[in-house]
Amino acid sequence: MSGAYTFPSGVLAIARAYADGAFSARELIEATLARIDSCDAHVNAFTAITRARAVGAADALDARRARGDSLPPLAGVPFAAKNLFDIEGVTTLAGSRVLAGDAPATRDAPLIAQLARQGAILVGALNMDEFAYGFTTENHHAGPCRNPHDLTRTAGGSSGGSAAAVAAGFVPVALGTDTNGSVRVPASLCGVFGVKPTYGRLSRRGVYPFVASLDHMGAFARSVEDLAATYDALQFADTHDAACAQRPFEAALAPRDRSPGVLRVARLSGYFDRNAQDDAREASLTAADALGASGTVDYPDAEAARGAAFLITAAEGGQLHMADLAARYDDREPLSRDRLIAGALLPAAWLVQAQRVRASLRRRVLELFAQYDVLIAPATPTIAPLIGDEFIEVGGERLAVRPSLGLLTQPISCLGLPVVAVPMRTPGGLPIGVQLIAPPWREDLAFEAARRLEDANVAFCPAPPAFDPALNGVPTL
Amino acid sequence: MSGAYTFPSGVLAIARAYADGAFSARELIEATLARIDSCDAHVNAFTAITRARAVGAADALDARRARGDSLPPLAGVPFAAKNLFDIEGVTTLAGSRVLAGDAPATRDAPLIAQLARQGAILVGALNMDEFAYGFTTENHHAGPCRNPHDLTRTAGGSSGGSAAAVAAGFVPVALGTDTNGSVRVPASLCGVFGVKPTYGRLSRRGVYPFVASLDHMGAFARSVEDLAATYDALQFADTHDAACAQRPFEAALAPRDRSPGVLRVARLSGYFDRNAQDDAREASLTAADALGASGTVDYPDAEAARGAAFLITAAEGGQLHMADLAARYDDREPLSRDRLIAGALLPAAWLVQAQRVRASLRRRVLELFAQYDVLIAPATPTIAPLIGDEFIEVGGERLAVRPSLGLLTQPISCLGLPVVAVPMRTPGGLPIGVQLIAPPWREDLAFEAARRLEDANVAFCPAPPAFDPALNGVPTL
Repeated sequence: MSGAYTFPSGVLAIARAYADGAFSARELIEATLARIDSCDAHVNAFTAITRARAVGAADALDARRARGDSLPPLAGVPFAAKNLFDIEGVTTLAGSRVLAGDAPATRDAPLIAQLARQGAILVGALNMDEFAYGFTTENHHAGPCRNPHDLTRTAGGSSGGSAAAVAAGFVPVALGTDTNGSVRVPASLCGVFGVKPTYGRLSRRGVYPFVASLDHMGAFARSVEDLAATYDALQFADTHDAACAQRPFEAALAPRDRSPGVLRVARLSGYFDRNAQDDAREASLTAADALGASGTVDYPDAEAARGAAFLITAAEGGQLHMADLAARYDDREPLSRDRLIAGALLPAAWLVQAQRVRASLRRRVLELFAQYDVLIAPATPTIAPLIGDEFIEVGGERLAVRPSLGLLTQPISCLGLPVVAVPMRTPGGLPIGVQLIAPPWREDLAFEAARRLEDANVAFCPAPPAFDPALNGVPTL
Repeated sequence: MSGAYTFPSGVLAIARAYADGAFSARELIEATLARIDSCDAHVNAFTAITRARAVGAADALDARRARGDSLPPLAGVPFAAKNLFDIEGVTTLAGSRVLAGDAPATRDAPLIAQLARQGAILVGALNMDEFAYGFTTENHHAGPCRNPHDLTRTAGGSSGGSAAAVAAGFVPVALGTDTNGSVRVPASLCGVFGVKPTYGRLSRRGVYPFVASLDHMGAFARSVEDLAATYDALQFADTHDAACAQRPFEAALAPRDRSPGVLRVARLSGYFDRNAQDDAREASLTAADALGASGTVDYPDAEAARGAAFLITAAEGGQLHMADLAARYDDREPLSRDRLIAGALLPAAWLVQAQRVRASLRRRVLELFAQYDVLIAPATPTIAPLIGDEFIEVGGERLAVRPSLGLLTQPISCLGLPVVAVPMRTPGGLPIGVQLIAPPWREDLAFEAARRLEDANVAFCPAPPAFDPALNGVPTL
């Protein structure tokens, strides 16, 4: 196999070609690591490379294939995970200098172990906002993660490294987490597909917590089928995780000949239009049109839902980190430390009120799904802002950019609804995402709608960039 | 039927005798109302009498019987409810002057309607601590409810009127609520049986809320079978109540020939011994002995559970009442208004910590039920204190009496576990209760243990007092 050989670029394509003997896992992993070595200096997506583990896993897989043993479904697929996930032998940084002196994790988080069991090969840990509190991955310890499609722009956050690693073509799939939008925001800004399943669907064990009642595990990929295959691989009923709802396996995508017929689709208007720039609103209109949406619906009291999510996050996050915030203030991320202290000191009555609002809205929003299978909203109010930008203009108002990137995701996740984020084109060339929102436990409806946008050539996942002429000899995934 | 006729005194006895034609419902209701009229001035259990409704229901029932129609299971049984429950045509006071100007309720709370459908006849609303925040029913608006067995002593609270009305023999059964002990504390001090089922078991609709995550509905009676029949009558899956867990009907008591054999019983020691006076500890030892307890177990971190319940209650209750506390401070109960304001102003981080502690303890305590069916603890640290008493001595410490009456109930209810409170003898003659605590949804185990204490003549529900020689002509229930 010559150096000019180009490996397939998707999860399923790699697994199929590997099973067919088109290349060895060792070759693919070495090419993958070489490209990360050469190009990640531009992006800053990785905070650790698990080189020895990856090469060892590749060799073991190759030996297995050589013996003629049956191969697991994701055999040979490289992946990486936000550094919030425990990786055996690696210190779980959670984006923070505060944890840098901790001992390495003694075992993989179950979701990492799950992908490894299915044959996928972990190549590293990914950059993020400190303790997952932020939407831009402008991490002052690790440096900002840059958007592969415009290195002067943010990749979004908090799972910015995960989205950027997939958008850059370093790995076909990556794991992230989403508390208020941390999968959907970077998916939107980097132009990749992302899934945030129903609250309670995926095991959270071995992942550094943030807000118990809001934390979700999720994933990124560059096609709907790749994302669906990954999500399916991640599903298991973790009886050791009290927050895992112990659901049976439920396939993300029905076979094409058994996919549901008419999807009842509506576009969320009101708050979701007011808090979106033209690019974002246009993307949701385009998606609605392609899915034959019957009209618009109003999400009741979306402002209140967003406020509730904001307060609950600040209060719970502040409580979780109170000791460190007091003892190691100087080591904490400047972009979030003061917000967390303020959150911890909110009056309890505000937190109670936020919890009440959330419970009451959940009941009202669930009623919308009596009429609709999928609701559409933009994933972010804007395309990727420049790194360091402080403000954006939305609906005639000047808003702080970092918290406002979550304006459109927070009202959805605080109710635990499953979402597939689908990348779309904008006139300026940079991508923006739309959220396809389904009722609880119906990820399949969101995936089906995403597949239809992809089939209609409405979804748009830009090709990974080449980065630099000097890198032309490096095989691209 | 002569004035000297004495009606049967229990739920099932009344229903059976009524069905047999031993008396008319009108006669029984008039006798019931007459006794309340004559004697409740001593006790102050009632805040409203629903005379017209009771007489109308009695006449309708008598007509039904006269027609030879089949009778519902609780036909003719008088009952009353804590004034936290909506009663059609009566203003729901919730023990407060603040609500006195509100319009009367337009319909019964579902649990009231449920008992009425089963033939029970509502005779009135019962005294309580303001907004259910207190353990003594020393209500400054309605006046204190007095313990029928010693009128200088408290009936306990917050469902003090409910326990007292049953202990006084005014009604054979009454409804109450229990957030931190408000069924079990007055049951203990008044010497009646009480049930606080699993969190989520009974509909809470139409009942003035206090702490959403802790509020339970419950009932009082003077025998295990009466309490079980009432609890069975209250069970229904209320699809309009988001907090109702929609469980199928599960009978409280198995028939005697099918009752479970060996019950695996243990007594809670440690915290539950330290925070009990001799009378209370002796009662739990006697119950443990009678039930063949295999030993003692330690409830992990009971102090923390109690602290968590305390903080959550103050914060949620404070938030609920914040507007009134600000606008109508002078109209609020002096015994609780300052505590609620303080609760609302707690830092959110404390509330978060309390919620975390609670979730973690629940997991640990549930593990005890792998080994035991029923756990025993005293219901209160002491027999009924004198009305106005400020302090009790427990374990060598001087404690504020009003909050401390819940020391032994709060760690149990904050985990949502079902409890039957069983009255016991003390050397001084006044009763005290023990809690029979079962795993979630296993009320039947607690009821079975209670029946065994009753069968063994260890349970002791004192006879209703006569109150006054002048009242001797009044038929006693």
